Amino acid sequence: MIGVHLEAGAVTVRKMAAPRRPKGSALIRLICGGICNTDIELLRGYYGFKGTPGHEFVGEVVESDDPGWVGRRVVGEINLPCGHCEWCKRGLGRHCPRRTVLGIVRHPGAFRELLTLPEANLRAVPAKVKTEHAVFTEPIAAACEILDQVKIPRGEKVAVLGDGKLGLLIGQTLRFSGLEVHQYGRHKEKLRVAEAAGIEARFSNKLPAAAYDYVVEATGSSEGLMQAVGMTRPRGTIVMKSTVHGTVPLDAAPVIVNEITLVGSRCGRFEPALKLLQTGKLQLDQMISEECPLADAPRAFARAQERGVLKVLLRGS
Amino acid sequence: MIGVHLEAGAVTVRKMAAPRRPKGSALIRLICGGICNTDIELLRGYYGFKGTPGHEFVGEVVESDDPGWVGRRVVGEINLPCGHCEWCKRGLGRHCPRRTVLGIVRHPGAFRELLTLPEANLRAVPAKVKTEHAVFTEPIAAACEILDQVKIPRGEKVAVLGDGKLGLLIGQTLRFSGLEVHQYGRHKEKLRVAEAAGIEARFSNKLPAAAYDYVVEATGSSEGLMQAVGMTRPRGTIVMKSTVHGTVPLDAAPVIVNEITLVGSRCGRFEPALKLLQTGKLQLDQMISEECPLADAPRAFARAQERGVLKVLLRGS
Repeated sequence: MIGVHLEAGAVTVRKMAAPRRPKGSALIRLICGGICNTDIELLRGYYGFKGTPGHEFVGEVVESDDPGWVGRRVVGEINLPCGHCEWCKRGLGRHCPRRTVLGIVRHPGAFRELLTLPEANLRAVPAKVKTEHAVFTEPIAAACEILDQVKIPRGEKVAVLGDGKLGLLIGQTLRFSGLEVHQYGRHKEKLRVAEAAGIEARFSNKLPAAAYDYVVEATGSSEGLMQAVGMTRPRGTIVMKSTVHGTVPLDAAPVIVNEITLVGSRCGRFEPALKLLQTGKLQLDQMISEECPLADAPRAFARAQERGVLKVLLRGS
Repeated sequence: MIGVHLEAGAVTVRKMAAPRRPKGSALIRLICGGICNTDIELLRGYYGFKGTPGHEFVGEVVESDDPGWVGRRVVGEINLPCGHCEWCKRGLGRHCPRRTVLGIVRHPGAFRELLTLPEANLRAVPAKVKTEHAVFTEPIAAACEILDQVKIPRGEKVAVLGDGKLGLLIGQTLRFSGLEVHQYGRHKEKLRVAEAAGIEARFSNKLPAAAYDYVVEATGSSEGLMQAVGMTRPRGTIVMKSTVHGTVPLDAAPVIVNEITLVGSRCGRFEPALKLLQTGKLQLDQMISEECPLADAPRAFARAQERGVLKVLLRGS
């Protein structure tokens, strides 16, 4: 079989041995994968990563302990927790200190013809959700995590800063969860996706001061946090979604004087994401910039780094 | 009368006209004032401040609309809100955008023989609380604010980072509110105050990694926030208390990956502070490094900036 290999800043496609299925895990054939900004960061060597990336995927179960999974179209939660520590017992395996993470931390990723994942991580894709939409489950779950962490009153005005892939999914997730979203971005084309979802889109060259009780920072840039602080009203909340490498500057005085709360936010549960996908309301087709066969991964990664490009998908065989 | 004047990095004592008492305000004779780090920052010109500083004080009411105040020993909330805006209506006048602030923002401070403050801001000092303790009401209220903002379960372990004036008051406030406090600092002498209050004191040259669900950052230094992030467990909370001038570096990745919450925290209500003072449990005598007459303010400010010095008090006439 073939798979993608990242090493020393280069993407290659290699022949590799099919993975052995550990007990409790399923062997899954890749149908479709999605390239995420984290994959680009891995390529840039930020986490000393070397191996097969990929954590956004839809696959078909080929083999599993529970025969009920075989033949089913699935997505999979990316954190593989130990199952025994206090975090796991609290249902927060996503924070298990011994966890591995699909395609990110010590577990080979999904960008290969066959992958393995514990059956406990699998979620069946509802029949009415097409594969090209289901591949967004993981980042939509990350968007849903915001609502698990912060109780935002229904109808509340929320600013989403950033019009990249995650920013647009966050905007839509919040919008279809009953919030009034203002999406701030720098790209006319990308903001159009937000507008198609009924979101008020605004250019981020002019950001309003102290205008929102809730701001989601998803710019992916190190200046985003300072901008978010400026937009937030006293006692307001900023959700931090930009995993930027290294330190970002923070103007501490307004955070303290205005008693602003900053909430770091990462992965989320897949259930609310799949529920949202089933509504059919999300504008996802417009977010797919290109689809490439797995064998063309080097081109797909290059394309994913071009300005103005949103999601690039990798097709399994 | 005389009063302190800050301008262009210099402290002077001047003759000045007695303030006129506006309707609704009380005229107050200064009994005792406390020099706070914010006063030192004003002296360094960080906020373009020019005028009379001082926001920690105990005074005696000389004249007021309500005759019930006359002759009483009082402390005073430092924010003077407009009383009409949405913040004021929500009982959060401390965030009123049109507020003035005693000795900080467009309201002459308490370091003068006579000052004025709205009667609504006054709180009577209970008879059993001595003046040298009551002068700590404002910073203790800032410590109490933490408990108003963050619900910390009783008996919970909390790390307080910093052994300065505010750090020590925070440590004691949390300790006597039923929490298990570990105070981290760099000064043996200062940590002794924490120990006298039954707090476990530790040197901050070796900070434990991911050890606390609650960390209060009160170092007053720009590195404090990064240190606090390193000490906090996943899903933990950091309370930000160090108003540092300019930007501080923040390592965003662990905040996001570990879903840490950062809460900016400033002034608090005086009621819980006065209640705590009445218990008599706080170790405050050891926190007073020096008392100077108001006329010696330049020496008092110099002393307050010396290494190892805690609170310097100014005596009214």
